[in-house]
Amino acid sequence: MKKSLGAKTILYPTPIMLVGTYDADGKPNVMTAAWGGICCSSPPCVAVSLRKATHSHGSIVLQRAFTVSVPSEKHAAAADYCGIVSGKRTDKFAEAGLTAVRSVLVNAPYVGEFPLVLECRLLHQIELGLHTQFVGEILDVKAESDILDANGVVDVEKLQPLFFAPESSAYYGTGRRLGDAFSMGKALKKKGP
Amino acid sequence: MKKSLGAKTILYPTPIMLVGTYDADGKPNVMTAAWGGICCSSPPCVAVSLRKATHSHGSIVLQRAFTVSVPSEKHAAAADYCGIVSGKRTDKFAEAGLTAVRSVLVNAPYVGEFPLVLECRLLHQIELGLHTQFVGEILDVKAESDILDANGVVDVEKLQPLFFAPESSAYYGTGRRLGDAFSMGKALKKKGP
Repeated sequence: MKKSLGAKTILYPTPIMLVGTYDADGKPNVMTAAWGGICCSSPPCVAVSLRKATHSHGSIVLQRAFTVSVPSEKHAAAADYCGIVSGKRTDKFAEAGLTAVRSVLVNAPYVGEFPLVLECRLLHQIELGLHTQFVGEILDVKAESDILDANGVVDVEKLQPLFFAPESSAYYGTGRRLGDAFSMGKALKKKGP
Repeated sequence: MKKSLGAKTILYPTPIMLVGTYDADGKPNVMTAAWGGICCSSPPCVAVSLRKATHSHGSIVLQRAFTVSVPSEKHAAAADYCGIVSGKRTDKFAEAGLTAVRSVLVNAPYVGEFPLVLECRLLHQIELGLHTQFVGEILDVKAESDILDANGVVDVEKLQPLFFAPESSAYYGTGRRLGDAFSMGKALKKKGP
């Protein structure tokens, strides 16, 4: 029996994306966002939604560039910190003990300590209401060598990504591998006539 | 040391969203998508990106409505199946042993067996390239009683959501609870002057 929970932003999982920007003074800033995700395969694009009131919002509009740094479980506290203070008056990189690394592709910094980074140039700015959705073209993805498998593919068990749970407001880690995508459903496929 | 992986759609986690629609003949269809996520808090909105070639794409454009059904770990094979066959020639609900339940709020069906459902009316259709992004206003979220805690909030450990890992093409379950959001980073916060 299903129960109505109302018109709310409830979905699991939502990603933890640390959005890196330079502000008008060239100061690096980073903000934690969970509203967003991959939104197109070609060109490869990622969407992040930010409230207009945030310092990062103005920086993306100004620089037309941003990065997305993806934390591991061990970075959960640092990622949370970057979502609860404003970059207007704080040097979040310094206070969280994180290193701002300048992207060589776009005018934006990323988190040096985090194992996975997406470097993006702004393609679209879409006003949805409280949030503005920024769609960035992914120009490159960079990963620490120690999270890659023998084929150079990200090993999710080494990355150990976390997710944000809306409503209950908690972070969860990565669980067990359930199976291969585009494969484990084949058993349900009927033979053709 | 970070290594370049190229311009690719790599992000973890990405959600497993079963997008429910009625086609022009009123036939219910459901398609698995991982490109998307929550994109605005007010109005509450969710984005799903679909290729124009899919049967579901035309149905959303026609009906201006869709649902998102969220599976638990035990539904992984059914969710995978709905991503590898087309609804043009197949009744995916019947073949996957799933029940199409008609939403009373929008002209779209959802998956009766799945524990969490978002009912959406189409707000925006944004052409990004290979994918069209559909932004839906979430009119209601419905959840099975047995995944709710004593306060009526979704218990993530009971829901057991899964995620899709691009590149390695695998599904992963939910791991351990790491801590409270908007809280575990407070220890890093400097005292004011």
